[in-house]
Amino acid sequence: MKNTLVMLAHGSTDPAWQAPFQTLETQLQERLGDHVRLAYMELCSPLLEEVVEDVAHQAGNTPHRVDVLPLFFAAGRHLRQDVPAQLEALNAQFPHVAIELLPPVGQHPAFVNVVTDIVAERDDMSA
Amino acid sequence: MKNTLVMLAHGSTDPAWQAPFQTLETQLQERLGDHVRLAYMELCSPLLEEVVEDVAHQAGNTPHRVDVLPLFFAAGRHLRQDVPAQLEALNAQFPHVAIELLPPVGQHPAFVNVVTDIVAERDDMSA
Repeated sequence: MKNTLVMLAHGSTDPAWQAPFQTLETQLQERLGDHVRLAYMELCSPLLEEVVEDVAHQAGNTPHRVDVLPLFFAAGRHLRQDVPAQLEALNAQFPHVAIELLPPVGQHPAFVNVVTDIVAERDDMSA
Repeated sequence: MKNTLVMLAHGSTDPAWQAPFQTLETQLQERLGDHVRLAYMELCSPLLEEVVEDVAHQAGNTPHRVDVLPLFFAAGRHLRQDVPAQLEALNAQFPHVAIELLPPVGQHPAFVNVVTDIVAERDDMSA
């Protein structure tokens, strides 16, 4: 089965906020390929719905898998309620696309370690 | 001059969202000391204003430095407008406390690298 990895960011109407996410998408597509895509939960394009719809149409009737990796520090109501509701609707709309919501990057031990190191490094500089 | 490092998170009314930030604060205080503190921009306690006020009172009239490190992926309007306005008001209220707003952790190269690695690792697992 073909698969797509969607990096999900919160979204903002502020282009300056969006810029680093777009840079990340470009870097990751260069490294891994076009099946890695960026989507936003709300407020700016491309929305999660738009990306999944695009993937579903490109897949035709072929079964396809979409893993959604949230670029969030923590799983609050957005990731426990809003996004699952969005994905449930998309699963109903596109039965040939199996969508899975992964834990946010903030729960990854390597993520916690790097934030810890950045804080420690900064603390060292300001001591 | 004594200093405090304030890790600034967005804030949420959702305790499940707050939990990993509190864990991070505990870990960093064990590693670095009580001068590393967590604060929220809005929606939950301790707010940035509460933490800076507490630090200012503990400092008495002794000059003190507060570095604010945002636990944010990107610098949008919150970090370019809202937080600077909060800090300007605090600087006026507590003249003996010098507050500096640092770039968000999301702009640190190590942070971008680890997010990239987590995406690549996940992509590998779902291939």
